[in-house]
Amino acid sequence: MILHEYAASGNCYKARLIAALTGQQLSRVQHDILAGATRTADFLKRINANGRIPVLELDDGTMLAESNAILFYLGADSAFWPSERLGQAKVLEWLNFEQYSHEPNIATVRFWRAYLGEARLTQVQRAQLPGRIEQGHAALAVMESHLHSCAWMVGDGPTLADIALYAYTHVAPEGGFDLTPYVNVRRWLDQVGTLPGHVPITA
Amino acid sequence: MILHEYAASGNCYKARLIAALTGQQLSRVQHDILAGATRTADFLKRINANGRIPVLELDDGTMLAESNAILFYLGADSAFWPSERLGQAKVLEWLNFEQYSHEPNIATVRFWRAYLGEARLTQVQRAQLPGRIEQGHAALAVMESHLHSCAWMVGDGPTLADIALYAYTHVAPEGGFDLTPYVNVRRWLDQVGTLPGHVPITA
Repeated sequence: MILHEYAASGNCYKARLIAALTGQQLSRVQHDILAGATRTADFLKRINANGRIPVLELDDGTMLAESNAILFYLGADSAFWPSERLGQAKVLEWLNFEQYSHEPNIATVRFWRAYLGEARLTQVQRAQLPGRIEQGHAALAVMESHLHSCAWMVGDGPTLADIALYAYTHVAPEGGFDLTPYVNVRRWLDQVGTLPGHVPITA
Repeated sequence: MILHEYAASGNCYKARLIAALTGQQLSRVQHDILAGATRTADFLKRINANGRIPVLELDDGTMLAESNAILFYLGADSAFWPSERLGQAKVLEWLNFEQYSHEPNIATVRFWRAYLGEARLTQVQRAQLPGRIEQGHAALAVMESHLHSCAWMVGDGPTLADIALYAYTHVAPEGGFDLTPYVNVRRWLDQVGTLPGHVPITA
């Protein structure tokens, strides 16, 4: 399987992390999003019409986009995907929370500040920055509250929900999010970070 | 089961539509999002710490948030959830596309224009409007291109991917999106709209 990716992206890291935790091999092909490599006619036609990475290319050439769909595809035969329906739905609840309430704020602020650079933001992006920072902290507060009474996001062991949320939470400080007040989130980050087979985002 | 909802929300409609298509009964409790009813201390504590609807309250009191997680919970035992892994992953691909690339643009523009009213938008929201309209059309173009060669979003019959994307696509004109040029999308809307058991968003 080939992972079409941009290595610093937390969305791409999700695929590498679940592959490492479950002992699967992925080849990696880099696409420079800063240079517009995922918006070329060839990429849109051949890899993903939606112009985004990650995309997992299967052995038969099938292209699978969307980080959390890839996470499911690589993890659904492992203990990271619960066996009963409600546990599965709860994992999907957090995966959707991640893509709707967490990533657009925490990942975007990190990208704007640490990769694009604040000087290169458009006026519209600059106007959105305070709101996105506030919404990012709101997402962290939801996690902090949940992890106050729960060891893991779903059930009593690690699931795809933990992998998906770990990806951008553990690098949130790169976007200026101070995690010091989020005691339970930091304890949980340590748990995910020491799972057997864990690989860092820089690997 | 009780659906905590705001009836005009496409995200809430997803739950009602899959329940109708699969012959399940839902009680309904309305929460007026325009009056801030999902951000009260009681709602946040008792129903959803993330302050959003829909939330499905199960018979044992468990609360399940996120529209696409509810869609999975209600539909995973039906023919709307494929039986093999890749088909399931492809459904999740489109569910994530819907929440990341489609809903934040098409649903938000509809909400701002048809429910909140443009006069009540903040300056930051107003600045985002042209970009969201453009991104909404980009999402429709991805669907149009896919449906040019495929009868349904995944495989050769209706799945949860069709239900999720139908919810806000069929009311996109309320946000000012003219669907006339999207010939394949309109053909597909007709297919979903005539599935046995289909109920309108106004039901």
